[in-house]
Amino acid sequence: MKFSVKILGCSSATPTKHRNPSAQVVTMGDKMFLIDCGEGTQMQLRKYGVKFQRIEHIFISHLHGDHYLGLAGLLFTMHLFGRSAALHVYGNSVLMDILRLQLEVSATTLVYPLVFHALEPEKATVLWEDELIRISSFPLVHRVPTHGFRFEEKHELLHLNRERIEKLHIPFGELARIKRGGDYVDSHGKLHANASLTLKREAPKVFAYCSDTAYSREIVPHVAGADLLYHETTFMHDMAATAAEKQHSTTRQAAEIALEAQAKKLLIGHFSARYDDLMPLLEETRGVFERTELAEEGESYEV
Amino acid sequence: MKFSVKILGCSSATPTKHRNPSAQVVTMGDKMFLIDCGEGTQMQLRKYGVKFQRIEHIFISHLHGDHYLGLAGLLFTMHLFGRSAALHVYGNSVLMDILRLQLEVSATTLVYPLVFHALEPEKATVLWEDELIRISSFPLVHRVPTHGFRFEEKHELLHLNRERIEKLHIPFGELARIKRGGDYVDSHGKLHANASLTLKREAPKVFAYCSDTAYSREIVPHVAGADLLYHETTFMHDMAATAAEKQHSTTRQAAEIALEAQAKKLLIGHFSARYDDLMPLLEETRGVFERTELAEEGESYEV
Repeated sequence: MKFSVKILGCSSATPTKHRNPSAQVVTMGDKMFLIDCGEGTQMQLRKYGVKFQRIEHIFISHLHGDHYLGLAGLLFTMHLFGRSAALHVYGNSVLMDILRLQLEVSATTLVYPLVFHALEPEKATVLWEDELIRISSFPLVHRVPTHGFRFEEKHELLHLNRERIEKLHIPFGELARIKRGGDYVDSHGKLHANASLTLKREAPKVFAYCSDTAYSREIVPHVAGADLLYHETTFMHDMAATAAEKQHSTTRQAAEIALEAQAKKLLIGHFSARYDDLMPLLEETRGVFERTELAEEGESYEV
Repeated sequence: MKFSVKILGCSSATPTKHRNPSAQVVTMGDKMFLIDCGEGTQMQLRKYGVKFQRIEHIFISHLHGDHYLGLAGLLFTMHLFGRSAALHVYGNSVLMDILRLQLEVSATTLVYPLVFHALEPEKATVLWEDELIRISSFPLVHRVPTHGFRFEEKHELLHLNRERIEKLHIPFGELARIKRGGDYVDSHGKLHANASLTLKREAPKVFAYCSDTAYSREIVPHVAGADLLYHETTFMHDMAATAAEKQHSTTRQAAEIALEAQAKKLLIGHFSARYDDLMPLLEETRGVFERTELAEEGESYEV
């Protein structure tokens, strides 16, 4: 299935003239998920032509302003545009307290159901799944409770070999069982092994999101084997002391996590406003982990 | 003194591709004031080169999202940039409850003093004044408690006639008294009348801000004689019924208020997202009140 990440913002702490605060849209098949929602996210969604009413799940990593201050505005706009589908928001429980005050004081009763899910602070948790997708959170190491997110294809269903299915006239009612790995016995009693009825599945793909976090090897198992790992690199490595103090990561630290997790590709972002030119960050990260890309606003990255 | 208004946003309810939510900067002499602070205001301040750390007073008309959702981000950015001067915020008391939660949950202790002033819902109130400037609020008519603001030059001080002052060698210590209207007796006992030492003062200028509000004649005395009146015109007049229902104003209603208040100039804004082309709104308003301008983002308007 289609599986990609579109960057809407990759600035840390404060926006700059050319970079917006954190937000990204993950597309998996026909579903879209929003991770973080910094100030201006609704304008970025419009600018880059994302049909934001299709988003049904929003994941907020933590309650530093640059990761959630655009959420209320987006919720109000969804309301004003007459949304009907439920919206699920996952975040620190205080986020719902803030939203509740904002709704009350503006005398707003949302025209769609808002379902809030408080994140568990200390443990990895499956937040949502369907037949094809599983999304979970895991703890990061930051100055306030912060979560990373892991988006996985489940691929527990096999793809049918349509040509064989049609040739054998297998009834529709049998297909779900075959997708789950079952064989098929036809009306003459002949057994058709599952392998002859289905296509080889690809390995399920994984995207993992780590922002904001200090360097910590405890993150590694949660992002292990990611096809695409987004990891913050607020600073270059000469600022490792500042990074440690502020509980952020440097270029080389992000690359170390990607190496240890055996990630296939690394996407770096959450850049400090001090860096106008991001090429030195990219080069420094590639010095440790070659398959690195810079997050650029408006760009999509295949998982 | 310099007295002007710079528009940072003039969209109603939701931002559009080309218009941001409400915010404007009033400059009076060496002081800058911010009125309303919709989402993205900190980006707009940067985009238009406003030195935002010079702002010491922020006035929030009401707690609909398009008028205040950018405030928290601006306060955090002022903090991260090491502001030291006190910041005064005027608004509905619930605004401080929201900000308090946002500060607590992000473990932020602001490095500058934040002084919150709750607005009185029902009466006109002087909010701040110094020797030269007076700022007051007055009630508007909207779905939630909403305030307009009036910025006035006081001009209680006269301008000195520098040429005469220098010629007579009047000592510095006498000048403050002369500015307040006093005469001067020189060392020979000769009296110099105040009128010979000062320049004729101009009539003090007034800017008034009305957003959001239903049409109401009760507003007129509060904006009377404004040199520049900003009045919302969310809708064209064919939508007067919708305007009344949502407690907003139309083009002609804004013009009527300007006429009745004997304003010198009218600036219209807070346009519904349904209008791409704003010229019909301008023409309809000018049909009733000729001296009307459209609020355009990034533009400054002399008071």
